[in-house]
Order: sequence, then structure tokens, then C-alpha cells
Amino acid sequence: MEEQFGRSTNGVSWYIPNAYNVWKAGSPEQIERWLKPALRGELHDAYAVTEIDAGSDPSGITTRAVRVGAGKWVLNGEKWFVTFGSVAKVIVVMAMAAEGGQLLPTLFAVPADAPGVEIIADVPFTHNYPHGHPSMKFTDVELTDSDILGGLGNGEDLQRLWFTEERLGIAARCIGAMQRLIEESVDWAINREQGGARLIDHQGVSFPLADSAADAAAGRLLGLEVARLTDAGADPKLVHGKASMAKLFCSEAAGRCADRAVQIFGGRGYMRTTAAERFWRELRVDRIWEGTSEIQRLVVARSLERRGVKSMLT
Amino acid sequence: MEEQFGRSTNGVSWYIPNAYNVWKAGSPEQIERWLKPALRGELHDAYAVTEIDAGSDPSGITTRAVRVGAGKWVLNGEKWFVTFGSVAKVIVVMAMAAEGGQLLPTLFAVPADAPGVEIIADVPFTHNYPHGHPSMKFTDVELTDSDILGGLGNGEDLQRLWFTEERLGIAARCIGAMQRLIEESVDWAINREQGGARLIDHQGVSFPLADSAADAAAGRLLGLEVARLTDAGADPKLVHGKASMAKLFCSEAAGRCADRAVQIFGGRGYMRTTAAERFWRELRVDRIWEGTSEIQRLVVARSLERRGVKSMLT
Amino acid sequence: MEEQFGRSTNGVSWYIPNAYNVWKAGSPEQIERWLKPALRGELHDAYAVTEIDAGSDPSGITTRAVRVGAGKWVLNGEKWFVTFGSVAKVIVVMAMAAEGGQLLPTLFAVPADAPGVEIIADVPFTHNYPHGHPSMKFTDVELTDSDILGGLGNGEDLQRLWFTEERLGIAARCIGAMQRLIEESVDWAINREQGGARLIDHQGVSFPLADSAADAAAGRLLGLEVARLTDAGADPKLVHGKASMAKLFCSEAAGRCADRAVQIFGGRGYMRTTAAERFWRELRVDRIWEGTSEIQRLVVARSLERRGVKSMLT
Amino acid sequence: MEEQFGRSTNGVSWYIPNAYNVWKAGSPEQIERWLKPALRGELHDAYAVTEIDAGSDPSGITTRAVRVGAGKWVLNGEKWFVTFGSVAKVIVVMAMAAEGGQLLPTLFAVPADAPGVEIIADVPFTHNYPHGHPSMKFTDVELTDSDILGGLGNGEDLQRLWFTEERLGIAARCIGAMQRLIEESVDWAINREQGGARLIDHQGVSFPLADSAADAAAGRLLGLEVARLTDAGADPKLVHGKASMAKLFCSEAAGRCADRAVQIFGGRGYMRTTAAERFWRELRVDRIWEGTSEIQRLVVARSLERRGVKSMLT
Ligand SMILES: Cc1cc2nc3c(=O)[nH]c(=O)nc-3n(C[C@H](O)[C@H](O)[C@H](O)COP(=O)(O)OP(=O)(O)OC[C@H]3O[C@@H](n4cnc5c(N)ncnc54)[C@H](O)[C@@H]3O)c2cc1C
Ligand SMILES: Cc1cc2nc3c(=O)[nH]c(=O)nc-3n(C[C@H](O)[C@H](O)[C@H](O)COP(=O)(O)OP(=O)(O)OC[C@H]3O[C@@H](n4cnc5c(N)ncnc54)[C@H](O)[C@@H]3O)c2cc1C
Ligand SMILES: Cc1cc2nc3c(=O)[nH]c(=O)nc-3n(C[C@H](O)[C@H](O)[C@H](O)COP(=O)(O)OP(=O)(O)OC[C@H]3O[C@@H](n4cnc5c(N)ncnc54)[C@H](O)[C@@H]3O)c2cc1C
Ligand SMILES: Cc1cc2nc3c(=O)[nH]c(=O)nc-3n(C[C@H](O)[C@H](O)[C@H](O)COP(=O)(O)OP(=O)(O)OC[C@H]3O[C@@H](n4cnc5c(N)ncnc54)[C@H](O)[C@@H]3O)c2cc1C
Repeated sequence: MEEQFGRSTNGVSWYIPNAYNVWKAGSPEQIERWLKPALRGELHDAYAVTEIDAGSDPSGITTRAVRVGAGKWVLNGEKWFVTFGSVAKVIVVMAMAAEGGQLLPTLFAVPADAPGVEIIADVPFTHNYPHGHPSMKFTDVELTDSDILGGLGNGEDLQRLWFTEERLGIAARCIGAMQRLIEESVDWAINREQGGARLIDHQGVSFPLADSAADAAAGRLLGLEVARLTDAGADPKLVHGKASMAKLFCSEAAGRCADRAVQIFGGRGYMRTTAAERFWRELRVDRIWEGTSEIQRLVVARSLERRGVKSMLT
Repeated sequence: MEEQFGRSTNGVSWYIPNAYNVWKAGSPEQIERWLKPALRGELHDAYAVTEIDAGSDPSGITTRAVRVGAGKWVLNGEKWFVTFGSVAKVIVVMAMAAEGGQLLPTLFAVPADAPGVEIIADVPFTHNYPHGHPSMKFTDVELTDSDILGGLGNGEDLQRLWFTEERLGIAARCIGAMQRLIEESVDWAINREQGGARLIDHQGVSFPLADSAADAAAGRLLGLEVARLTDAGADPKLVHGKASMAKLFCSEAAGRCADRAVQIFGGRGYMRTTAAERFWRELRVDRIWEGTSEIQRLVVARSLERRGVKSMLT
Repeated sequence: MEEQFGRSTNGVSWYIPNAYNVWKAGSPEQIERWLKPALRGELHDAYAVTEIDAGSDPSGITTRAVRVGAGKWVLNGEKWFVTFGSVAKVIVVMAMAAEGGQLLPTLFAVPADAPGVEIIADVPFTHNYPHGHPSMKFTDVELTDSDILGGLGNGEDLQRLWFTEERLGIAARCIGAMQRLIEESVDWAINREQGGARLIDHQGVSFPLADSAADAAAGRLLGLEVARLTDAGADPKLVHGKASMAKLFCSEAAGRCADRAVQIFGGRGYMRTTAAERFWRELRVDRIWEGTSEIQRLVVARSLERRGVKSMLT
Repeated sequence: MEEQFGRSTNGVSWYIPNAYNVWKAGSPEQIERWLKPALRGELHDAYAVTEIDAGSDPSGITTRAVRVGAGKWVLNGEKWFVTFGSVAKVIVVMAMAAEGGQLLPTLFAVPADAPGVEIIADVPFTHNYPHGHPSMKFTDVELTDSDILGGLGNGEDLQRLWFTEERLGIAARCIGAMQRLIEESVDWAINREQGGARLIDHQGVSFPLADSAADAAAGRLLGLEVARLTDAGADPKLVHGKASMAKLFCSEAAGRCADRAVQIFGGRGYMRTTAAERFWRELRVDRIWEGTSEIQRLVVARSLERRGVKSMLT
């Protein structure tokens, strides 16, 4: 399904009701208040982890929730790159909850209209999305225990589950994107002539196409296999490692395919009206968000050691 | 000098008076009317070769100039991707001049305000430039012999000279761009910490930086050497082949460097406010215009055969 | 099964009874005489197509079989790179059979001890194999109709079937090789320390390992999927194209994995006693034989056009 | 000159009198005894640093020299990969000299026929060299102060100087190798036909050739420039960083060129009688010895930080 989304440029999937998977851990009230309307397309949620000094390494998070009375919390901090931040009705915020001398990573469902929630910057990004990824500031935002998502101190575990699913989602969209890119460029290469022959009859064009096809076909099977494993309830740690592998392979392969497609379209590949151009810009972020390619390589290498080469490769 | 330009994103060099080198072949009147004001920054010129069906292969050009009386011509045709087309006061148009039953490739200096000159499309491109690259239509534009640039039938020869210089110019700008990209990313990698260490202390960051440095240093020497050869008046055919080699190497290397820089900046590399991001978009076209990388490879391979391996490599 | 072979270096599979799949088209007598003993490990066959001027392009084959009487043929020609040529008891020779003014590509089962069969050169190759790949000369070798394999003029069709199976076999061995290479190098990287840390804790080592893992996992699924399709009796033309894609991807990926493994072993990777070293040399030929990577890219590109992008990618 | 050597496969330069540059620091007696005969081709020297647990990281060296009386030392240890070890008359051994409670890295000129010097293993390597790279054991070898090369405790400084020169030497040989590889393959590609055209007329062949040409031309200029800087007496630290950059670029580029050349020769590229084949095997070690590519990247990245981007790139 995500694969299908990938075939349109991401801009489209944007309009389709969706919600972050952490809501699975939500209380009945939270599900009623936030998740159900989200799935009905009546509201957007946002998910705010990244901070100015905590990107690849979330251990540096400084956003704090401090208990200020029975069941009451006050939240302070600043989050960067909050996708949907400008339209969301609820923002899931990762904060360190100060409790009994400890700092416990915890997710809070913060209503966007709560006093103290504001957008402080909204810069443009490489892709063209209807909504941006603003920086948001939380100043003395008052919350209650009922805003905690999935339990005090469970933020990191929820995050890990979330990663597996989101990374597979990215892999799927990248696969769909590769398919679309190859269709577009094969079509163009068959119909355009230059230098006395159809583009596809120049090996400088057809060879990159063949490499893209192999990338797309192999990437698709890898994505599907890991999705299948997840659905079959395989060991979450193994699935975590394999989801990273699928995200790494598919986002890197999609980057290569998009670059080749732009090249095959020549000057038209540099026009914002061409699908190859849009994909080239949009796919770039898939090597960065939900863990950069470097972070995925770290996860995969660690999994090769801990889960074993055999489990990871077969 | 171009190398210096490259260090700012191309957007800046945009404002610096410049003119296409084909004016060297201009008549005294043409030089007075178009070149001198261009160099004084009083007007822009544009250079229109590409057509809907003639891109990499200019032999497919269909724009026609027909002689309609003593010293009089009428021009018809459509040109694509005319850089500066929307602001230029004069457009150098490559046309096939029908003369004595032959079609002679010829450059015409067409005043932009001549009746019959119009912009028919102006789509946005990947980079952000103050002026676009519109498609232009020429309908029964009346010209005279004095608008011919460099002589009837000399269009292709002039074009070849032009290519050598333009390709070196692109190489130079790419070199400057690589230097700037590496400066920016080394600086960032030294000052940002993630995962308990400075980015530059993670080999996943420092190794791509080292590869970029080698690319930039080698590319610079190649560009300088070919420029030196040109200035020294070396065999134009050899210089033509070597300029293609320099353009190929530097534009491909700059593409790699920009991609690595974006990655090193992480999420910030995807913000339009970051230099790495702008370069990544702007440098993409350097593998396409003035002859795609594929066309440069064809030129280099042909030069290896005709000029000899030794001449090309040393 | 081939995957399992790949895990030893090819040298081992060498000793395992095997026979070329064209024997499927053999007559009952041929099967009795050649195939059954081959499968029992009692004799070797060889398969000779390539000639001095006919490699990637078999249309240039000059080996001729001329009819010299009822059911009698005389064979003349020279074949290169005949794997098993020095030990085979039978050599399947692709020849142009002159018949009714036509030249029909035909396979002949030539007994190695027939008069006129000789080895004319036997040079060493990059890998270390118990038997070489000699050049063989056939001078006035007398054959009969009963030595024709699969019917007069059916050589090319049989060849195509053969290619599909052989290419999948190569893919499978490359997959096994990748698994073994990654096991060996993860093991080494965990147990060796340099620069104050285990090799695997240097990203310069662990990142290539992660990329190898993704290559191996994706390549394996691609190989398996195409094998499954073949077994399921899918359209032979589609399978032909996909087998090329699998061979291309797996042999190129295995080449990358071997190169990375050699590097991870450092100086030891350059010792002939190390598995990585042997694989590095042995895997090199998988990008050359049974159709070079260039030929596979041609096949894949043609399949994208003729079979359709969708069929090729999903 | 080294560039000229590179053009033959390394095997040849093997026979040309040469000596390691650390002899520059030798005493008059050492120069008389070892260096001069070496340069006259009368003896070989060897240089032994690497140990079983000290490769990329020489700080792990365990070979010890212990003072056992006035001006007397006893040497114990094991060295790996001692090039020329089997024929050398003198072995320069890096040892930790125990002196006043300290361990001082020191070079000793050890006569090969001294009691206690023995070869303990001599395995074959990927390339075919007349002499191997044996492991050597030093058991209670008696030495004197006059066998110390360049002063007690100066081993590391001498090593650094040695590295700069050796790395430039490798770069030069790689450049020569690339030139020879391109000559050979252009020649072959012009003269061989397959698929109805000369190989060079297939872009699958000519495009890799063009990329190799750009690699070779750029690499050559980089190597020459750093050699020029060294001769001009530039800051040794800067030269050290740049020599690493040149070694990195040229050895990686030569690896690519050799791989492309093997491919262009097809089956013949896999024959040990072909120059491309020999180079492919021989050049592999240039990414490993005298500091692996990973170590060069570390040096380059550190130089970008300490020497500055500008100094490194221009
Ligand atoms: C368009 C967009 C939308 C986003 N949406 C959201 C969102 O909705 N919610 C949210 O919480 N976040 C979001 N993000 C943030 C995103 O997840 C981060 O940008 C990403 O995790 C990288 O963090 P960073 O930008 O701080 O880069 P850094 O962590 O600073 O990384 C910089 C570079 O250093 C490398 N690096 C870092 N650590 C290591 C290491 N240990 N080893 C090797 N290399 C390392 C990285 O790979 C990268 O190349 C979004 C980002 C973008 C661009
Ligand atoms: C931003 C921008 C500004 C421009 N400004 C100008 C300008 O001012 N004046 C002007 O005249 N033009 C201009 N151009 C046009 C530019 O020069 C062409 O886009 C370029 O030459 C490629 O031509 P094309 O777009 O028609 O692509 P095509 O020629 O259709 O090429 C499509 C693909 O096929 C490949 N290909 C084509 N022929 C072969 C072959 N024989 N062998 C192998 N591969 C081949 C190409 O490499 C490319 O990958 C501009 C283009 C852009 C994007
Ligand atoms: C160890 C070994 C064992 C072998 N065993 C056998 C065997 O048992 N039986 C047998 O019959 N053969 C065997 N072969 C031969 C093998 O199949 C051929 O070497 C292979 O098909 C390539 O042919 P070639 O060597 O003539 O190279 P060429 O066809 O000359 O190719 C040279 C280069 O040109 C490229 N090229 C050729 N045509 C094109 C084109 N149209 N477009 C783009 N690029 C092109 C190739 O990709 C290659 O890079 C063996 C080869 C080796 C090395
Ligand atoms: C043919 C041959 C001849 C030789 N001749 C000589 C000689 O004459 N004298 C001599 O003294 N030595 C010689 N050597 C040894 C050579 O210098 C070493 O092999 C080389 O320095 C690498 O050391 P290693 O083999 O121990 O690999 P290791 O140091 O174990 O390296 C293994 C892998 O880990 C990587 N690695 C190691 N440390 C790091 C790090 N900090 N960060 C990232 N990656 C890292 C390496 O890059 C490599 O990929 C020779 C070697 C060969 C193969």
C-alpha cells in the first residue's frame, strides 16, 4: 500500500488520513480523542523528538516534563523539524520526565492549542510539501497524567517500535518511487530520439536503466520480506535490524534511481514539472530522516554481531 | 576567477556582467552594439541552440533563416531552455540558413525586441535563479546580413570554440563549489556533536570528507591544467577533448561532494537555507547542460582514439 | 543448493558431479552414454561455444559442420575457454551446420577421444582451478546424426534455455559466496583489534559490512524469486530477462562484497590462504562468463521494453 | 620515474636497484655497508614494521630490543609481511628499545645472516612476485649501537618521513599503471569487434574508458603536485597529509581502472597472460600497504581539520 503511495510523489500521500503507530499504546480516552479522528481524516497528529542538539542521537534530548502536583506536569523545551507541526491538533512530544531523581524518556500527547505551544520557525525544505516542518517551542505547557502516552518512562521502547514501522514505510514508498521512476524513464527513452537513435538504444541510457531495474526488483523483495517477517511476529530485535537494512537499501537505491532518471530526462529532468525532478528532491530526505543511512549502517552492523550473520541474511 | 564564483552559489555570479565568447567573432558594429554594453553590465545576452527535438544532438535543429532579398533574412523556429531569455536584449540564435539549396548552420544576433520574438513558456527549474530558462518562439523575425555572427555557415565551428570555454567555466565553478562545500562541512563536522563525539570523529562522516577532498584537489588541478593549455594555444582539438574530460570529472565530483555535504548536515542539509542544500540543487544541472556527462564521455572516448591516449593523459 | 556451493570457493563445487542442462534435449542413447555417467560422477562434459572472434556475440561463430554423406558430418573449428576441456569425455560443440545452402546453429556431442580433437593452448587464469579452460581445435572430426544434440538448427534455442539456468546458477553461487564472505569478515572484525578498538567498532569497517549485508540479503531474495518463477513455469522470455537481472545484480554485488572483505582483512586479505582472497579472484569471472555484465544489461533493458516495466519489477 | 615503473607491472621494478629512504638517516658506516651496495644492485634491504597484532596501528608493536651491556642490544620479536625478506642482506627492524624504563621506537639495521634471524612462514600472495613477503622471527639477535638507524627513539619520526615518500611512490606507480591500462584497453577496444561494431563504439565499453581517462589524468596531476611540493620543501605536515590524499586517490582510481580494463578484455581479462589481469591483482595491494585507504582517509580528515581546508585543497 505504501508502495502504491510511493508511486505518486510523496505530496499525495500527504492528504491521506494516517497516524503515527505509537497511538497503539494509547489509553482508550487518547484513542477516542486523537487516533480515531486522525484515521477519519478529521485531524492531524505530529511527532516531535528531534531537538537542536539531539538528532541522530536522541540521548541528548533536553525537553523536560516536571511534576508539579498530583497528576500534573509542566513541559518545557524546543523541538525541530516537526512534520505536520503547523496543522496538527496534537503533538506527540518526547520529553525527559523528572521523577524521583531520575529522567525518564516519556511521550506526551500535547494538544496543539494548549497555552505555551508555539511555532518559532518555519523554513522551506528541498521538497515541496503542502505543510512544512516547523520548529516548535513549549513553554510551561500544563499537562496531566492522562496526556502520557504508553506509560511513564516507556518513550524509548515505543520509539523503537515506531522506528521499525516507519522505516518499513519509507522502504515501501521508495520502492513505489523506483517503479514509477523506471516506468517514466523507460517510456521517455523509448519515445525520444537523439543522435540518430532512440535514447534506449544508447547504452549510456539503457545501462543505467538496467541497473535501476535490478535495484528496484531486489529492493522490493527485501522490503516485502521484512514486512512479512514483522507481520509473522518475528523477534522484534531481528526485525528492527532488518527494517534498518531494508530502509538503508531502498532509500539508497531510490536515490540512485532518481539520479539516473533525472539524467535520462536531460534538461527536462531539471524542470520542476517533471516527475523525475520531484522524486529526486523528495527522495533525498529518505536517506536522512527516521535515522540517517549512517545510523542504519550502525544498526545493521550491530545486528550482524548480535543477531548473527545467518539470521540477518536469510 | 570562475573558481571564485563557484564558491558562492551560482545565483551570485548571475549578477556579474558577462557575455558569451562567440562575440569574439562579432563585427565591429556587433561588438559596439552588444558586447561592450554587456561587459559594462548594461545588457544581457542569451544563447539559444537547444530545441524541442535537438538537445544533445544539435544536428536536428529545425529553426530556419530564409533569405528574402538582398541582405535580408526571415527567421522562424522555437528554442528551449534559453537562459537569460526573459531579460536579454539580444539572443544569439543558432539557425539553419537556407542558401543555394544548402542548409548552413549559422548564428544570428537577434534583438529581443524585434517583432516576432516571444516567450512561450517559462517553467520553474530545480535551482533558484533570479531569471528562468524560458522557451522562445521566433515568428517571421526580420533580420539582415549584419545580424549574422561570425559568418554564414560558421555556426558549428563557433559552437565548438564556445563549448571548450563554457565547459572549462563549468569545471571552474564546480571546483569552487567543492571547496566551499568542504569548508562548510568540515566546519560543521568539527563543531557539532552527536553520539558522544564530534561528527568529524565518526568515520561515517570523516571518510566521505576525505574522499571529497581528494576529488576537489584532483579536479582543481585538472581544470587548471586544461585552462593553462588553452591559454598556451595548444591544439584546439586536443583542448576540446581535455575540456570535456575536465567538465566530466569536475561536474561528477561536485555532484558527489554536494551529496556528501547534504548528508553531513543531516536534516539541516535538507533546508533551503543551507549552502549545501543550494549547491546540491544547483550543481545537478552541471552534469546536464553544455553537453551531458554522456556526451562528454563520447567526446573523451573519441579523443582517446583520435588524439591518442598519451596526449589525453599527460 | 548452488547457494550452498557458493559458500565454499568454486574449487569445491568442481568435484561435485554435474552436467550441462542441454542434455535434457538429448536422445535416449545420448542420455545413456553421456548424461547418466556424468551425474554418477564417472565422466565430465564440456560446453564449447566461444571462439576467438565470437564471444559476447555468438553470431560470429565460424566452426562448421559439413554433411559428407547420409547421416555423416565433418566438423572443423576452434573453440576458446573450454571449461573442463582437459578432462571431459564429451564436448558439446556449437557449430554452424551447412545444410541446404543454409547455416544452422546446431549442438554436437563430440567424444573427446575422436580423432581430430586436440587441446592447442592451456593458459592459467586468475582463479585456481584444478582444471583449466583450454583452447581446443577440431580438425576434420567425423560425426554422425546421432551426435546432434536436440535437433539440427536448434542450437540457439537450447542455448537460451541453458543461459537462463546457468545464470541462475551463477547468481546462486554468488549469493552463497556473499554469505560466506560476510561471515568471515564479521568474525574477523569482531575478533581483531587495531587503533584501540575492535575493527567492527570502526565505521570504516562496519559500514562496508552493513552495505554488504544489504547487498547479500537483497540479492538472495532476487535469486530465489527468479528460481521460483522458473520452477513455476513462468513465461520463458520473462524468466530469461529476470535471470539476467539476477545474474547482473548478484555477480556485481558479490564483486563488491569480495572487495570489501579483502579490505577488511587488510594484508591478510592479500594472502592466497585467506577465503576472502580466493573469493575475490574467483568471483571476478562471474561478471564475465555466461554473458558479461554489459550483455546482461542489454538483455534487461530489452526486457524492460518488450516485457514491460511492471512484469520485470514485480 | 616511478610513474614509468608503474607502466610495467610491478614485477619489473622489482629488479631495479632501490633502497628504503630511511637510509638517509644512516651513519657513514651504514651507508657504506648497506645503502651503497643496495643502490649498485648488489644487495637488497627489507623493512620490517608490521607484526601479527600491529598492522594499521603500529603502537601495538611488541618487538623488543633490550640493552645488555655497553653498546650491546638483544632483539626479540616477530615481523609479518617482510617484503624482500627472503633475499635481503639487511632488514630494517622497528623495535621498542627498552631504555631507562621507557620503550623507545627505534629502527635497527639487522644483518640477515645474524644468528637468530629466521623465516618462519612464506605464504603466496595475490600478485606474482619473484620474492615473497615472509614472516620473520628474531630470537636473541645480538646487535650493537652501531646498528641503530637514525638514533635511539627516532623510529616514529623516520617512519613518518618514510611514509610520505613511499606513498608518493605508490601514487606514481598507480599513475603509470593507469596509463598502461588505458593504452592497452583503448587499443583492444579499437581493434576488436563484437555485436556488429568495434568495442569502442559500444558505450558500455567507451564510457568506462572515458571515466578511466579522467581518473588517470586527474590522479597524475595530483601526484605530480604533491611531489613538487615535497621537492620545494613545503611544510612536512602538510605534505604528509597531501601525500596521503594522493595515495588514496591514485590507488583507488587505479583499482577502478584495472577493474574496468579486465572487463573490457572480457574472458581474456581473466587470463594471467594479459596485462590487465596482472595489474588488477597487483594494484589491489596498493589500497592496503603503506597504510590502508581507511588510514589515508583518517590522515586526510585530520589534515583538513589541522592544516585547514584551504591548504589541503589548493
Ligand atoms: C523534512 C524533515 C522532516 C522531519 N520530520 C521530523 C518529525 O516529524 N519529527 C522528528 O522528531 N524529527 C523529524 N525530522 C528530524 C530527522 O529525524 C533528523 O534530521 C535526523 O534524525 C538526523 O538528525 P540531525 O538532523 O540532527 O542530524 P545529525 O544527527 O546532526 O547528523 C549529521 C550527520 O552526522 C551523522 N552522524 C550522526 N551521528 C553519527 C554517528 N554516531 N556515527 C556516524 N555518523 C553520525 C549523520 O548520519 C549525518 O550524516 C525531520 C527531518 C527532516 C529533514
Ligand atoms: C537550466 C538549463 C539551462 C539551459 N540553458 C541553455 C541555454 O542557455 N541555451 C541552450 O541552447 N540550451 C540550454 N540548455 C539546454 C541544454 O544544453 C540541454 O538540456 C542539454 O544539452 C541536453 O539536451 P536535452 O535536454 O534535449 O536532453 P537529450 O539530448 O534528450 O538527452 C536525454 C538523455 O539522453 C542522453 N543522450 C542523448 N544522446 C545520447 C547519445 N548519443 N549517447 C548516449 N546518451 C545520449 C543524454 O545524455 C541524456 O541523459 C539549458 C538546460 C537547462 C536544464
Ligand atoms: C574462466 C572462463 C571459463 C569459460 N568457460 C567457457 C566454456 O566452458 N564454454 C564457452 O563456450 N565459453 C566459456 N568462456 C567464455 C566466456 O563465455 C566469454 O569470455 C564471454 O562470453 C565474453 O566473451 P569474450 O571473452 O570474447 O569477450 P568480448 O565479447 O570480446 O567482450 C569484451 C568486452 O566488450 C564488451 N562487449 C561485447 N559486446 C558488447 C556489446 N554489444 N555491447 C556492449 N559491450 C559489449 C563485453 O561486455 C566485454 O566487456 C569462459 C571464459 C572464462 C574467462
Ligand atoms: C604484499 C604485502 C607486502 C607488505 N610488505 C610489508 C613490509 O615490507 N614491511 C612491513 O612492515 N609491512 C608490510 N606489509 C604490511 C602492511 O603494511 C599491512 O598489511 C597494512 O599496514 C595493514 O595492516 P594489517 O594487515 O595488520 O591490517 P589491519 O590493520 O588489521 O586492518 C584490517 C582492516 O581494518 C581497517 N582498520 C584498521 N584500523 C582502523 C582504524 N583505526 N579505523 C578504520 N579502519 C581501520 C583497515 O583499514 C583494514 O581494512 C605488507 C603487506 C602486504 C599485503
